[in-house]
Amino acid sequence: MNIRHRPTAEDTRERIISVAEEHFRRVGYAKTAVADIAAALHMSPANIYRFFASKSAINHAICSRLMDEVNAAIGAIVNGPGTAAEKLRAFVISLHRHNKTRLTNEHRLYDMVEVAMAENWPAIDAHCQRMRQFLAQILRQGIEAGEFRAVDADVFADTACNASAKVIHPTLIAQCTACGETDQEDQAHRLVDLFLAALRP
Amino acid sequence: MNIRHRPTAEDTRERIISVAEEHFRRVGYAKTAVADIAAALHMSPANIYRFFASKSAINHAICSRLMDEVNAAIGAIVNGPGTAAEKLRAFVISLHRHNKTRLTNEHRLYDMVEVAMAENWPAIDAHCQRMRQFLAQILRQGIEAGEFRAVDADVFADTACNASAKVIHPTLIAQCTACGETDQEDQAHRLVDLFLAALRP
Repeated sequence: MNIRHRPTAEDTRERIISVAEEHFRRVGYAKTAVADIAAALHMSPANIYRFFASKSAINHAICSRLMDEVNAAIGAIVNGPGTAAEKLRAFVISLHRHNKTRLTNEHRLYDMVEVAMAENWPAIDAHCQRMRQFLAQILRQGIEAGEFRAVDADVFADTACNASAKVIHPTLIAQCTACGETDQEDQAHRLVDLFLAALRP
Repeated sequence: MNIRHRPTAEDTRERIISVAEEHFRRVGYAKTAVADIAAALHMSPANIYRFFASKSAINHAICSRLMDEVNAAIGAIVNGPGTAAEKLRAFVISLHRHNKTRLTNEHRLYDMVEVAMAENWPAIDAHCQRMRQFLAQILRQGIEAGEFRAVDADVFADTACNASAKVIHPTLIAQCTACGETDQEDQAHRLVDLFLAALRP
């Protein structure tokens, strides 16, 4: 039985985001106009503008969704099972893999993130802050369990995130990939080894 | 007494490099033509081409000079007095300051380095390799003196250089400066603290 029901505003918003993301990936952010997204959805551009003030606003929504995905994945690691050392490794490797796969390998999506980084730095910065807080949480778990020495968790998390820039920051991953570096995940593992050595009691 | 003597080929080469560098800094790399450099030197462009095949070749010579300067400064640290811990700190902080001051604050010079990074990656890569070898030398000094635990110096140097990307890599320093980060040298110091903690015997 095929029951049709009217889409809610939230449904429509999600459909716009999905179709826009697909267009940005396939055609590129710069070359996609709101009219193209509207045409693909059999909507008028005016209808799109009821939901999003601009193409840039759609891009921000897509980036938010990407960041929410990362948030959920990292949150699951922090609150899941395992030693603090295992979680620290999972944290760095997951962020590396996510940014490498989703942002760098899909070049056109990466363009969007570059635009977002330039236009919407506060949201990206807030995301990085959340990641640092997750890492500080892992460190506190390790310190409490006697696995790690008693460092200042916030300072250490901050420094470790800075130290991970080369294997986590989309721009750098893309640059290193372009230069032919094929051992980036190994580099990420060695970074974790360095952090764990610094955390020895 | 004013003794005039004919400039040697090496003198002329150096004068071309100096005048070109001054032009690239003031006018920008893209906007400077070989003819402008020739005019400033009261030479014909043909004479410049006797020394350099292209504007890009002049740029490579300028970048080589910059890299030689860094080489000399870091070499002096490695072979100078002090504990290995002090040298490790001086290594990271010097590279940070050099790249921040010479490459990032002087935007037009930075354009040249960006061009060189794109066009002449092997030379830049070789420079980075030399820096890693210097760091490995400091690590060996520390291990021999019993200051550091017995790590694989080459692997650790590699990882530490990767971890320092955010405070050493010109592109990242420029990006972080643009985002309003004002504590980059403090970040560099905290990175060194992390390395020293990981190197505790």
